[in-house]
This record gives sequence, C-alpha cells and structure tokens, in this order.
Amino acid sequence: MDHLTEYARLLGENAREASRQLRTLPRAKRDSALKTLAASLIASQAEILAENSKDLEAGKARGLSSAMLDRLLLTPARIKGIVDSVKSIAAFPDPLGKVLGKHKRKDGLKISRVSVPIGTILFIFESRPNVTIDGGALCLKSGNAVILRGGKEAAHTNTVFARLFRAALKAKGIDERAVQLVEKPDHALVDLLLTDVKHVDLVIPRGGERLIQSVVEKARIPVIKHYKGVCHIYVDKTADMQAAERIVVNAKAQRPGVCNAVETLLIDKRVKAPAVKRILDALAEHNVELRGDEAMRALHPAVMPASESDWDEEYLDLILAVKQVDGVEGAIAHIDKHGTGHTDAVLAQSAKVQRAFLAGVDSASLMVNASTRFADGSEYGLGAEVGISTDKLHARGPMGLESLTTYRWLVEGKGHVRK
Amino acid sequence: MDHLTEYARLLGENAREASRQLRTLPRAKRDSALKTLAASLIASQAEILAENSKDLEAGKARGLSSAMLDRLLLTPARIKGIVDSVKSIAAFPDPLGKVLGKHKRKDGLKISRVSVPIGTILFIFESRPNVTIDGGALCLKSGNAVILRGGKEAAHTNTVFARLFRAALKAKGIDERAVQLVEKPDHALVDLLLTDVKHVDLVIPRGGERLIQSVVEKARIPVIKHYKGVCHIYVDKTADMQAAERIVVNAKAQRPGVCNAVETLLIDKRVKAPAVKRILDALAEHNVELRGDEAMRALHPAVMPASESDWDEEYLDLILAVKQVDGVEGAIAHIDKHGTGHTDAVLAQSAKVQRAFLAGVDSASLMVNASTRFADGSEYGLGAEVGISTDKLHARGPMGLESLTTYRWLVEGKGHVRK
Repeated sequence: MDHLTEYARLLGENAREASRQLRTLPRAKRDSALKTLAASLIASQAEILAENSKDLEAGKARGLSSAMLDRLLLTPARIKGIVDSVKSIAAFPDPLGKVLGKHKRKDGLKISRVSVPIGTILFIFESRPNVTIDGGALCLKSGNAVILRGGKEAAHTNTVFARLFRAALKAKGIDERAVQLVEKPDHALVDLLLTDVKHVDLVIPRGGERLIQSVVEKARIPVIKHYKGVCHIYVDKTADMQAAERIVVNAKAQRPGVCNAVETLLIDKRVKAPAVKRILDALAEHNVELRGDEAMRALHPAVMPASESDWDEEYLDLILAVKQVDGVEGAIAHIDKHGTGHTDAVLAQSAKVQRAFLAGVDSASLMVNASTRFADGSEYGLGAEVGISTDKLHARGPMGLESLTTYRWLVEGKGHVRK
Repeated sequence: MDHLTEYARLLGENAREASRQLRTLPRAKRDSALKTLAASLIASQAEILAENSKDLEAGKARGLSSAMLDRLLLTPARIKGIVDSVKSIAAFPDPLGKVLGKHKRKDGLKISRVSVPIGTILFIFESRPNVTIDGGALCLKSGNAVILRGGKEAAHTNTVFARLFRAALKAKGIDERAVQLVEKPDHALVDLLLTDVKHVDLVIPRGGERLIQSVVEKARIPVIKHYKGVCHIYVDKTADMQAAERIVVNAKAQRPGVCNAVETLLIDKRVKAPAVKRILDALAEHNVELRGDEAMRALHPAVMPASESDWDEEYLDLILAVKQVDGVEGAIAHIDKHGTGHTDAVLAQSAKVQRAFLAGVDSASLMVNASTRFADGSEYGLGAEVGISTDKLHARGPMGLESLTTYRWLVEGKGHVRK
C-alpha cells in the first residue's frame, strides 16, 4: 500500500472510530466543546491573524485575484462572525434523538423512528477558511465525524483553526479524531476518500461549479451539492405592480452576489407598457445592467441586447436578463428550459395563475408574491445553516442541521416473534 | 449521435415530459388507473401466462437453474398476488401534497414544506417480472415517471405487463410515457441512463450484489440500494432464555431466504451451558445447520466448525453461524466488524445492556427482545413496500411510498421583500 492510500485509509478509520463516541455523546458535552472553541478563537485572535497573513502573502506572490484574496482574508470582525456562528450552533436545539414517529401495535410491539447522526462527512471547500470552523461545528453538533479538505491557498489558516478545534475537543474529553483536516490537500487523496464507501457516508462540496462537477464525477459515496441558482421572477398581468417593482429590485439589488438573487425577469406580454417601464426604471436607478429581448428593448432604452447564453447565466452581479413571455405558460416553458431548480417566484393576484405556476415549476423553493431572497435557512427558521441543496434526495433547498442526520428504526418487544 | 444514445435520450425526455403531468395529477386519477390495471391483469391472465411460458421455454433452453426458473414463473395464484398488490397500493393514502411543516412569520410570510414526487425513477431488476407492475404502480402512486429495465430472461412477460400498464394509463387520460420499459435491455444503454443527471433523478437497483455494485460504480445519479443483510442476534446473560429460544428459531427458520433472517447468533459467555444447549437443540430440531467457534462446538455436537468467512456470510438458507462473545461489548465489536447495518437484535432484560447495545450498534433497524424478522415495511405499518435500504441517506431500512417523494418549500407573501 502506498503512502497516500495508507493516509486515506487512516483518515477514514479515524473518523469512523471517533463517530462511535460521537453518536452517544450527550448534547451538553457537544455544546460545551463548541463554547470552549468559541472562547479559544477569541483568545487566539492574534495567532489566527498571523497565520492568515502568511496565506495572504503567499496568495499575493502567486498572483491570486483580489476577489480570491478577499475571500481568504480574516479580520477581527470576521473572526467575531465565526465565533458568533459557533455560539449560535451551540445554542441551537439538538438535532439528535428526536422521535420522528412512533406507534404501539396491538400485539404490544413498540416501533419508533429516531434521528441519529449520519456517521462521517467529508467537506471539500475552496478559499474561505471559515468552513474549517463552521463545517466542524455543524458536524460536531449533529454527532458526525468530519474530514475537512480545504484549499491549498488557506493552508496556514485552516491548520490553526483545526488545531484550536481539536484542542477544544480534547479539553472536553471528546475524541480529537472527530475533526480531521487533510494536511496536504492532494487531488489523488481526495479521489481515494470519495470512493471510501466503507468509512465515509456523505460528501458535501462547497465551491465553484468545476469543483462540484469533479466531485460528482468521482464520488461513489452520496453527494449533497449546490449547482447554480438561476432564479426567475415571473410578473403576471394580474400582479400588484407596485409590489412587483419592490420585489424585483429587492431580489436583484439587495445582495446580488448570492445564489437566491434573481437572474432572469419574465414579464407577461399583457402587462401594460408603463408598468413594465416603471419596473425597468427602478432597476436602472439601482445600477442594474439590463439585458433583454427585442420586446424589452423596445420598451426601455437602458436594455442592452441579450444573447442566447444570457438565459442560462448566474450573474451573481448587478446584471439582470429580462424577457417578455406569453402568460404563465410562457414563463413555465422558459423556466423548464433554463431553470436550475433553485428558487422561482410568481407575482400574481390571480389564484389560477399562482396555481398554474406552482404546478408547472418544479423547484426547491417557490415564492408567491415574495422576493427570491427569502430562500435561506435563517429566513425559513432553520437556524444553523448547512447550505442550500439543488438535489432532490435527502435534503432540498436550504438545509438545517437536520440534513446532517439520518434515522434508525427501534423495535421494542417482550419476546415477540413474527407470525 | 448513435442509435443507443438517441434511444437513451428519448427515454429520459419522455419520462421528464410525463412527470410534468404526473406531479399535478389528482389522487383519484392515479388510483383509478391502478384499479383499471388490476382489472386488466385479471382479464388478460391467459395472455400473460402464454407470454410467460415463452420466457420459461427460452430459459430452459438456455439452461437456467431451477431457482431462476421459479423466480420467472407466473401462475394464476402469483398473478392474483400481483393484482392484490396493485389494489393495495391504490388503497394506500396519498404520499403527495402532505404538509411536512408550516409556520407563519411575524411579518405575515407563510412558509411551508410540502411533499412532491422526485421526478423520474429508474428501476433496474433481474428475473422476477412482477417488478414491472409493482415498481410501475409504486411510481404512479407517488407521481413519478418510471423507466423499467428488467432482465432479458423475462422479456416477454415484462413486455405484456408494460403494455397492459400503458393501456390502463391511456384509458384514464394519463401520459403513457409515465411507464416505459426498456425494450432491448442493453448494458451500454443502462450506463447511459445511469449518467443522465438531467432527466433521471434516482435509480433503485433490485437484485444480486453484483448488479448493485455495478450500478453504484457507474451511476452519477443518486442510488438507493440494498446490499447484504447479515443480521445478528446477541443473547445476553440477562436474557429471558425461553423467549430467546423462540426468537432465535423464528428469526432463522420462519423464512430463511429473506434479508431480515438472522445469520449469526452471538451468545454471551456468561449464559449457562444448559440454556445455550436448549437454544442450539431447538435450532437443530428445525433443521438448521450450525457453524460455530470452538466454544459452541464444545457445547453441542451438531455444531460444525465455522471458517472465518462464515461471519460475513448471508446464507439465506437454514444455516446459522454461532459464536461465543464476551458480553455486550464483545457483541458490539463483532457486529462492528461483520455487520451490514441492516438489522441487529439484543435479547436482554438488563436495561443497561440494552442501552449499551443501542449505543454501540449503528444499524437501520435495532430490535430489543424481538425477532429480526420484524424489519419489514408491512410490519412497521408502512403499507406499500418499496424495498429495504441499507443506505443512510434519504431512506433507511424498510421504505414506504414516502421514500419515492421529496419536498419543496412554498413561501407565500403579500409583496414581501427581504430586509
């Protein structure tokens, strides 16, 4: 067995061993380790910043873009954000041991379904080093062992974070192997972990589309992922046009760089021209670049011509594709072709149109007369957010801690045999 | 594009088109198609038997084993069994449109989570032709389009079944493409479907270990599967020994050929010799072949020597591996090494021992003082049974119709924007 295979096997076995302790650990113990971690992150701020500056220097030397460097950068305020997140995860209700269903049969046999951890979770992520803490905290809270594989560019920061995490575990008598950082991130090693069906139960890749596609290609273990969010808003002729203006501006301009921001606006051809103009005016006033079809260009001078690829673009920026459609059926046909199943909205007063939209569009989140920006774990009341899934199985849309648990069946008898 | 690629694309697109109608089809319509199907299966009995005998003749000519031929064989009684299953699926509560959670925020925004179909499901199965009807009925009931890929050896029977199914759909105005049978089952075609992430949402392979491993190897879409069921019973020194005797015999001998039958019996070394003997006597009386370690062989003359591979064997037959262990911790260590996460039982009066077993063993179903044979959808009250999953994600253990559904988030506002 070569070195790499040996290291991969060890990571898997370590995680599995740790998960045996984790799955029986009382909530108080898991939470107290998280509180210890929060305190040590504050106490070690200087050290964290020093390690982070090494990554930044190396990144500059390697010519990373300023956006990449910004994602790497930690500041006292950002560290406080990480600490607050750990504290809120500690405060969140226990996702384990929940009785999801129970009944007693006539013959006295008791059958219940109880939430339990999944086991070992592999997190693969890129530049943002906060995932080392965040992903580790979510997994500890849900009783899972975690293997963290961060980006090379954040190696120093990830290493100090992992060390602090393991010290907090040790201080509370928890098996340190519950949180393992892959010290030398190597593609061949990741490939081995992605096929280790015996020890790794789930992989959650976080990052760009290329990273995620490569994980899907190689994994033989289940993947929960998030592809693009090309979110649509359809404005029906029966929409409250003042609300529509407010919602469209909010969905695009309030925070354009996130996956639940709107990317394409579809307007019913029966909406009167002045109403369409007011919506486009409002967008232009918020510095939104508009790219549209002929009909939209005829209505507003600010609309630039859209190319065919614009309908599939996740801009993540102050850019919006705008298009005229023939009623709700036209909107459904467009979304069916270009949608990514993330979040789509219908703005209409007509209950019939709302129903048609809800029947015709198969997305994780559907909004009726509300902004797409609400598609978010904290807005949905899920508390700690694991991410957003564009998959259909196990977890769909915004994911809370529940998505890191599975269940088991418990059958309690008094010598019962099957007839 | 070659012929095969074209055919695979068509299967996927057809299914996706049909699923658009299916997901909005009221329950009454889905159920009435199932009732029509049940009636037509009865009316077409002679034709079904004639087609089935063609498969049997071809099978005999190809030299299929008598067990394989028996799995292929249909009789009037077996057809009645299939019809009853279709009727019971029709009678089962609707798994769609269930509100899994809802709340209204202070600002008036209503958020709910509602069960919806998964989309398109690929069933891959071997000789038993009833899956064409059974799998089709489960998918129709849950609003999913299905692509059925049966074994070559059952081609005539599968074809007549699929034709009757589509006729029942057509009679009720349902898109026939909801149920598609792969007419010429070809490995290369299956490989294409297994990577068609755009049109196929889930694959459920049913069959031997080799089939399942090949699907896992090739699939880029999610797989729900069932590997081996090496089920254990641990008899603690605190067990009610009369109950233990009854349970062990039931778990092994009542129906040895199924996945929830016990395969390995672990006996605490503190159990007195006469009690162990009585259990082994009872098994021998039920014609169970015993394979054990030295300690067991010393206690009973019927015990043959076990080889190391016996601890990993799913016999599916009247054979049982028996072993002495050092208390509940010894049992846990053995199960951790040889278990398959399917179903394991602890027989003990001591609450402490029960707790230790439940904490130490991570299986889909855990039995306390009850037979492993209860790990079954109908025994758990799930009604229509989709199968048993040894996976941890999405569905674990016995699966009901719920396992063929996912959910979506519905957000209803009155012009709400995010702050």
